[in-house]
Amino acid sequence: MSRKLRMGMVGGGVGSFIGDVHRRAASIDGMIDLVCGAFSSSAEKSIASGKDLNLDESRCYGTYEEMILREKELPEDVRMDFVAIVTPNHMHFPPAKMALEHGFHVVCDKPVTLTLEEAESLQSIIKQSGKLFALTHNYTGNSMVKQAKAMIAKGQLGEIRKIQAQYLQGWLSTSLEKTGQKQAAWRIDPKRSGIGGALGDIGTHAENLIEYITGLKISEIAADLGVFGEGRILDDDGNMLIRMENGAKGSISISQIALGEENNLGIKVYGEKGSLEWYQENPNELITRWLDEPKKIYTPNGIGLHEEALKVSRIPAGHPEGYLEAFATIYKNFATHVTAVNNGKTLEEPDYPTIEDGLRGMQFIYAAVESDKNNSAWTIV
Amino acid sequence: MSRKLRMGMVGGGVGSFIGDVHRRAASIDGMIDLVCGAFSSSAEKSIASGKDLNLDESRCYGTYEEMILREKELPEDVRMDFVAIVTPNHMHFPPAKMALEHGFHVVCDKPVTLTLEEAESLQSIIKQSGKLFALTHNYTGNSMVKQAKAMIAKGQLGEIRKIQAQYLQGWLSTSLEKTGQKQAAWRIDPKRSGIGGALGDIGTHAENLIEYITGLKISEIAADLGVFGEGRILDDDGNMLIRMENGAKGSISISQIALGEENNLGIKVYGEKGSLEWYQENPNELITRWLDEPKKIYTPNGIGLHEEALKVSRIPAGHPEGYLEAFATIYKNFATHVTAVNNGKTLEEPDYPTIEDGLRGMQFIYAAVESDKNNSAWTIV
Amino acid sequence: MSRKLRMGMVGGGVGSFIGDVHRRAASIDGMIDLVCGAFSSSAEKSIASGKDLNLDESRCYGTYEEMILREKELPEDVRMDFVAIVTPNHMHFPPAKMALEHGFHVVCDKPVTLTLEEAESLQSIIKQSGKLFALTHNYTGNSMVKQAKAMIAKGQLGEIRKIQAQYLQGWLSTSLEKTGQKQAAWRIDPKRSGIGGALGDIGTHAENLIEYITGLKISEIAADLGVFGEGRILDDDGNMLIRMENGAKGSISISQIALGEENNLGIKVYGEKGSLEWYQENPNELITRWLDEPKKIYTPNGIGLHEEALKVSRIPAGHPEGYLEAFATIYKNFATHVTAVNNGKTLEEPDYPTIEDGLRGMQFIYAAVESDKNNSAWTIV
Amino acid sequence: MSRKLRMGMVGGGVGSFIGDVHRRAASIDGMIDLVCGAFSSSAEKSIASGKDLNLDESRCYGTYEEMILREKELPEDVRMDFVAIVTPNHMHFPPAKMALEHGFHVVCDKPVTLTLEEAESLQSIIKQSGKLFALTHNYTGNSMVKQAKAMIAKGQLGEIRKIQAQYLQGWLSTSLEKTGQKQAAWRIDPKRSGIGGALGDIGTHAENLIEYITGLKISEIAADLGVFGEGRILDDDGNMLIRMENGAKGSISISQIALGEENNLGIKVYGEKGSLEWYQENPNELITRWLDEPKKIYTPNGIGLHEEALKVSRIPAGHPEGYLEAFATIYKNFATHVTAVNNGKTLEEPDYPTIEDGLRGMQFIYAAVESDKNNSAWTIV
Repeated sequence: MSRKLRMGMVGGGVGSFIGDVHRRAASIDGMIDLVCGAFSSSAEKSIASGKDLNLDESRCYGTYEEMILREKELPEDVRMDFVAIVTPNHMHFPPAKMALEHGFHVVCDKPVTLTLEEAESLQSIIKQSGKLFALTHNYTGNSMVKQAKAMIAKGQLGEIRKIQAQYLQGWLSTSLEKTGQKQAAWRIDPKRSGIGGALGDIGTHAENLIEYITGLKISEIAADLGVFGEGRILDDDGNMLIRMENGAKGSISISQIALGEENNLGIKVYGEKGSLEWYQENPNELITRWLDEPKKIYTPNGIGLHEEALKVSRIPAGHPEGYLEAFATIYKNFATHVTAVNNGKTLEEPDYPTIEDGLRGMQFIYAAVESDKNNSAWTIV
Repeated sequence: MSRKLRMGMVGGGVGSFIGDVHRRAASIDGMIDLVCGAFSSSAEKSIASGKDLNLDESRCYGTYEEMILREKELPEDVRMDFVAIVTPNHMHFPPAKMALEHGFHVVCDKPVTLTLEEAESLQSIIKQSGKLFALTHNYTGNSMVKQAKAMIAKGQLGEIRKIQAQYLQGWLSTSLEKTGQKQAAWRIDPKRSGIGGALGDIGTHAENLIEYITGLKISEIAADLGVFGEGRILDDDGNMLIRMENGAKGSISISQIALGEENNLGIKVYGEKGSLEWYQENPNELITRWLDEPKKIYTPNGIGLHEEALKVSRIPAGHPEGYLEAFATIYKNFATHVTAVNNGKTLEEPDYPTIEDGLRGMQFIYAAVESDKNNSAWTIV
Repeated sequence: MSRKLRMGMVGGGVGSFIGDVHRRAASIDGMIDLVCGAFSSSAEKSIASGKDLNLDESRCYGTYEEMILREKELPEDVRMDFVAIVTPNHMHFPPAKMALEHGFHVVCDKPVTLTLEEAESLQSIIKQSGKLFALTHNYTGNSMVKQAKAMIAKGQLGEIRKIQAQYLQGWLSTSLEKTGQKQAAWRIDPKRSGIGGALGDIGTHAENLIEYITGLKISEIAADLGVFGEGRILDDDGNMLIRMENGAKGSISISQIALGEENNLGIKVYGEKGSLEWYQENPNELITRWLDEPKKIYTPNGIGLHEEALKVSRIPAGHPEGYLEAFATIYKNFATHVTAVNNGKTLEEPDYPTIEDGLRGMQFIYAAVESDKNNSAWTIV
Repeated sequence: MSRKLRMGMVGGGVGSFIGDVHRRAASIDGMIDLVCGAFSSSAEKSIASGKDLNLDESRCYGTYEEMILREKELPEDVRMDFVAIVTPNHMHFPPAKMALEHGFHVVCDKPVTLTLEEAESLQSIIKQSGKLFALTHNYTGNSMVKQAKAMIAKGQLGEIRKIQAQYLQGWLSTSLEKTGQKQAAWRIDPKRSGIGGALGDIGTHAENLIEYITGLKISEIAADLGVFGEGRILDDDGNMLIRMENGAKGSISISQIALGEENNLGIKVYGEKGSLEWYQENPNELITRWLDEPKKIYTPNGIGLHEEALKVSRIPAGHPEGYLEAFATIYKNFATHVTAVNNGKTLEEPDYPTIEDGLRGMQFIYAAVESDKNNSAWTIV
């Protein structure tokens, strides 16, 4: 095995949901060590978090700027290889830009930036930097999602005709943001979230999953967004019609006020020869339907899988894989790519979401918001 | 128990899917006897069907006109009490009109008529006739649907915010109509189906289920219909956004080209205090979610049901009830109403779908088609 | 269609669970009319029930003896064709014997008799009478059960190695019999139930399902019965090991004190080439597993079914069939057999449970009780 | 956070299923670093594996004896804290004994030893050593299992009456051991597995889960073991009756020839006031049933959980946790305990399986085998 990669983190202080997830996901495959971080906008909290994580004190930084500058000066075999950015949306672009411009690869949470302009700008910066950039659309790391994508790519479902996607949560059914809950507070705040609320937070996952699995672009969208929580500005619910580039039609339903739903991301794809269905809350099943055969259920590492699906499983069939494993696959494939590049090799194409996915996400948010403003008129994505 | 009611049937010759269903549903509760019929547009086939059904030969009629006129002349304690109309859509209005005008109650399949105008006309005829009219939106007879409606009516879910309904079938994925399959042939034919294809055949069930369960009207619809089958004129797929009269939002997805789906009618309703979910393919479960309690699953004749749900179950909890039982409940409640009227009693309100539901169904079809023609513009239902 | 058969009923007064089920099941296919009955051990109640069921007053009898004698004297084209016996277990044998000896076919509820001796005696009486006898092991009428049996018979699963069956109910978790509940009262009473409690009431269904689906006999049983309800004499729970005639092994778990279970009858069968799994509470799915293919789910009237399964479905795929439909299939196949015999035809073999199944059930009860008395020693069935 | 603990590993060379699992599970919480190992019985392979895992070359040992002796001599702040033993069963006792006697804590795979005598001996050695010992009955680390245990401990289910457990796999349905598959080869070999085949490999998990969740001991067992694979000596299937110390009854079914089953471990527990049901293949649901309420489904980090369950979840409700997370909880709780001891603190009681669980497992295997030899006679566990 090649040497472990060294990761620096921006955001995600101890106790943060997503920082913790990134650290666990990065650790599962033994390919990455967390070596430094700027974990909070408060320098004091940042350093305390670093110590709590057993980091060398000299590498617990007060700000991301400090981290990037100081790491840059460390010997090559000591300094971090890449930066993981796990802050609220408005703080994705600044550290990503600076890290890339100082020669570090970047892993970034979604949606990729606060605005569409930032995303376009970031795309240029990445190209100029020659560095790698991964966006953590974690669900694409799931084995059954890989199988779904492979089956469609190989033509097993035939031409796609109909798509339904949903991402339903209920945690903002009440005015959680008024209780001081931090997760809720920034998500309903346009300054930190951008022009999309649920759209950016979970809608982009649904959009990404559709385009990833089907290999088709959403060409047009007609959106009816809802703002149900008292005093909210951003959407906390949305119903959308979609048209795909190949003529397929479909819908997307997202919500953070779907009371009682936990994290119900799901997709159905109907083709001329077969259909499939997957839900992330029950991630170890891929339901398929066929013209001439009864319904078949695929499972991770089970019978009948394509290589693309088999290679992301870490445990035998019947041993359930969950959220962290899929997330870890993004890190694993990114680390593999970085290592290949470090060793002067070229990978055919990145097997993880990149800036292009990030840009599509922002285009999706902007098109949906525009359609909604125009009373759900069809709008090009 | 009061005497059994006598039923005459229009359409539904031996071998027809829906005629058979109506006969079985009418028989389950021992309240109705089939006594006569005009089962086919071919007089010969009609009479053969009647004989096959063990009817008295003198009451196997060649046409529905003949049946209505001849039955009218029979002694009161012999002649049929009501007519069940189970023909394709274009043949609903003529026999319904004639039966009502000759003093017979009517049970009619959905959608209620070929055109919106016919439906409006039928509404007047029913009022003038003073006779009873039932529309077989059979799914509303299911115990869990009754429980869902009762829970919402009693305020257990609070104000409704979001609704998702789907009715997905795959049987028209291929060009079945070109193989001579009769069920497919008339459904894709505007002369016999009207302006809606899947819209009329299954979309009206979804629309009816939404309004029945929530007690709310759909105020506006934005529809994107699909015509995927080669050479078809009518929609075989549709994605729709809906807005409810109380401000709730939602979507409806229907399809007859959703390959592999059998009869996947389902609904999710999210309120401010609770949510619920029901699927007709798994009809013995009502899934509910709550702010302060884990997910709860209700079952027919099980714990925690309202009287409205309990009274439609015929067997103990755990003994699965299916499609026929729900269908039979429509007949049972209609027969109970007819008997009450026969005995000079007045029921508070019919506990079965009526012409108003039929009219709503036609308005739904017309609004959806209009919206689709206007590139999915919002259209009042 | 041939003429409808005329049914007389013993037991099952209005309000009884199982009488109602038999009447509905007999009516669904339009092949049988209820024409007379002795519905209760109280002559008064019996006659009231008959009237309530809209029977001719002259054929509402006070006792089953009266019914059999009087019907015998009616003209051949008026008198009942067969008797349906739906009384508690101790009242199966006397009316069955008398009906058969007076020339009537018999449908009887399970377990077939109160004692093993009665069952053996009944077997002789049936042979001598030349009349038909059906035992309502209703679950064998389900489409997916038929498919399971056919798949095994055709060798698709290979040699059977392991079997697990369960029949779990919770309705006797509390001392329901002390509340005056009639269903509970007779089931815990050895005088009316025989030597088995849950064993006879539901255990025989599990036993019958095993032997029906696999086509294999249970050769030995080792039983540990439980009596958990305060003051009960008969088993209300049981755990059993079984050995099959071909060397397969397995277990049966039954209970009426499995709190919260409604009617959880299920079976798993594992062979050398494939496996299957079925649950009556979700009766429209047959789950199958294979060496070289993913899990496949069969559905009634769906893709890939054998003729044996297809022919018992009354409605299209996706329209759920339930308890009553399976029950009705027993009546339908029995009626078809009676009609064939009436028309001088011979059927290859009855496609419904018969006295042989009844006898096996009694042997199962007796072997289980004996094994339990011998501290679960293996006992030949 | 305290310093990370240093782990040495015995067995589990690169490519081994369970070694990989242990390494991932140990890494997820950032509390443990792998620092050394003797990964194979071949010194060469062992060292190669260590290098592949990025270990310091000086700490890639040829044998476990060498590892223990050499690590012992390293400075206290460098040497390993504990040994993880992930070898086949016959190689559990020797390294465990040596590690304990040289002052190292031990984590060991199950079943704890090759023989009952070894297990008893190990119990003494642990006591004398004063060191900690964890047995990786990983399923007890699952959040829903913790919730189940807590609900029963708090009396929510009342007195337990009935238990059903199963652990069904199909991977030995064919003669996999004859293909050179290493996992299969040692499991069917008495020299490496002991007197139990499936009994030791998976049966002990079922036994442990029963006693863990219910808090009750199995007092007696009646076992019928099966040997279906051609040429096998050890059981590859088993059906067992059990009696619990409080009078509850139940059954255990295990198999490695249940064709098509992947890793179907499940348990049902029925009490006087409530019941519960859990399956490891769908580990994010705990199904509960009640006298006066509908079925309720609990989920990790969801509504209504006890503290015992909440504290093992690492991600929000709706984000599925799988096999690795439960496994990691064993390591986390063990690491917490070791750290507490290192800091001079005393924990109330270990929150992970220990030698007592290991001993129970061996007693279970021995009792089952003895019962089976005595034609399934009841045998004290």
